[in-house]
Amino acid sequence: MKIVFCCTDTRPEPWLDGLRAALPEADLSVWQAGVATEPADYAIVWAPPQAFIDAQPRLKALFNIGAGVDALLRLNLPDGLKVVRLDDAGMAVQMAEYVCHAVIRHFREFDLYQQAQARGEWAFRKPRHREDFAVGVMGLGVLGSRVAQALRGFDFPVNGWSRNPKVLDGVQTFHGMGEGLHAFLSASRVLVNLLPLTPETRDILGRDTLGRLRPGGYVINVARGAHLVEEDLLALLDSGHLAGATLDVFRTEPLPTTHPFWTHPRVTVTPHTSARTLRDESIAQIARKIRALERGEPIAGVVDRARGY
Amino acid sequence: MKIVFCCTDTRPEPWLDGLRAALPEADLSVWQAGVATEPADYAIVWAPPQAFIDAQPRLKALFNIGAGVDALLRLNLPDGLKVVRLDDAGMAVQMAEYVCHAVIRHFREFDLYQQAQARGEWAFRKPRHREDFAVGVMGLGVLGSRVAQALRGFDFPVNGWSRNPKVLDGVQTFHGMGEGLHAFLSASRVLVNLLPLTPETRDILGRDTLGRLRPGGYVINVARGAHLVEEDLLALLDSGHLAGATLDVFRTEPLPTTHPFWTHPRVTVTPHTSARTLRDESIAQIARKIRALERGEPIAGVVDRARGY
Repeated sequence: MKIVFCCTDTRPEPWLDGLRAALPEADLSVWQAGVATEPADYAIVWAPPQAFIDAQPRLKALFNIGAGVDALLRLNLPDGLKVVRLDDAGMAVQMAEYVCHAVIRHFREFDLYQQAQARGEWAFRKPRHREDFAVGVMGLGVLGSRVAQALRGFDFPVNGWSRNPKVLDGVQTFHGMGEGLHAFLSASRVLVNLLPLTPETRDILGRDTLGRLRPGGYVINVARGAHLVEEDLLALLDSGHLAGATLDVFRTEPLPTTHPFWTHPRVTVTPHTSARTLRDESIAQIARKIRALERGEPIAGVVDRARGY
Repeated sequence: MKIVFCCTDTRPEPWLDGLRAALPEADLSVWQAGVATEPADYAIVWAPPQAFIDAQPRLKALFNIGAGVDALLRLNLPDGLKVVRLDDAGMAVQMAEYVCHAVIRHFREFDLYQQAQARGEWAFRKPRHREDFAVGVMGLGVLGSRVAQALRGFDFPVNGWSRNPKVLDGVQTFHGMGEGLHAFLSASRVLVNLLPLTPETRDILGRDTLGRLRPGGYVINVARGAHLVEEDLLALLDSGHLAGATLDVFRTEPLPTTHPFWTHPRVTVTPHTSARTLRDESIAQIARKIRALERGEPIAGVVDRARGY
């Protein structure tokens, strides 16, 4: 069996070493622009160019490193080619960490305590009630479910929203555009975005949706920059309807140096670091899935290309 | 039944309103220095003066607001007087929040990302492995157990230490002074102190104990300032053995304005705010316990005065 590796932005050697150990029977190659590669059975990709796809007519499956397949699905892919997302590969716990840190930091006002320390000021603030800080999680896949459960562990009221109905223990769930979305937003004060990016969800966080959050709302975007209309967020921060935001993803990455988010006093910026793909976990998972496919067994994580995730 | 309220530092009115609603049959009074109060059956106290105790010969039980009874047990109390700690009263979840926020902030290096944002710098850091960040929780009562479980939820290896053997799901537990403590410390990199303050635990965090933590150790003290030898912590930070500390309690509170912790670049100071007593929860719990005592039933939270907690 032949496997080709085409991950722009990633040093291939450590991946090849890991794959060689996990799948000794495989014949591995690395794609290089302008160099012909033999047609492979499986590809491991991140942001591959169209030329790579065009030169690989025999692929049975494409494994996407990372949780979002939006960039991949914008390419022209042969009909019937299986696109596979990794189920988790260590990302869900990182997402839970990132989001819980941001929610607790906001709820407990640790940023204000940090400023007080800088002034040498000993002053405790009146505790706020967690019942007033319902957190709404958009997107209830592997990452969203783990985040929602982690927030429940701190006794926050948690709402969940997804395209289709879902049931999650201890979480009040809503679904569908229109009324379902509006009811979800008006029941939430802190919004966590973990949606896949599809034509339907592009620009979903704008004046109309964010304006429906409870007063003092807070936005945490850990999915894709294109979900959020950045000017609308800034306007709602400046009008006082939103209290702040923690943003890990942006319409343009790296975030341009002149962008107002960098210096906004109530915006926390991180450089798309909320959940990184962990190599060892990813390799183990890819090896398991390739073996299952070779045996003709079904695997989890196959993307519904029409749906977009 | 008569109840007297003696909480220095607390406005009594909201407590009296809540107690009146929860225990309408009770006759409530508030202690004032120099004014005689009728002998009561129950007292609700925080840091009461010796004079208060001396003027209350008929008390059946003393309810301590807050988790630590160290200050109370330094008073001269009549033999046989029941000292009762509140089981939780909303403090455990706050403690879990505070500690998880501090651990995640350190592990994920969010302080460095914050500094990078201030410089307008987009640069992600290599992810660190959580297997290298075993967290050791000292004290496995209501607060410590909740904190340990919350940390397990983020897949950190968690060690626990207590005076006597305890079993906690998913936590590697150690016990006893000497070898048990040493094994616990050398298995841990992040140390969370939630011990009661007793003659045995005073100064327990010093050069000898903190020096046994794994290199790059991190200290989170949310129990009592007198557990920690502050100069030893500073020396271990400056030698590079410890990477940092998050401290909520201090030998002198408020922390004196000239104390080096205020400005140390790797020390986070908060003003004894990790877990505040929540009034409504406390009142409900006190009412439940008083009713049980009146019916002659046993209650949880009675302090072993010889043991000190």
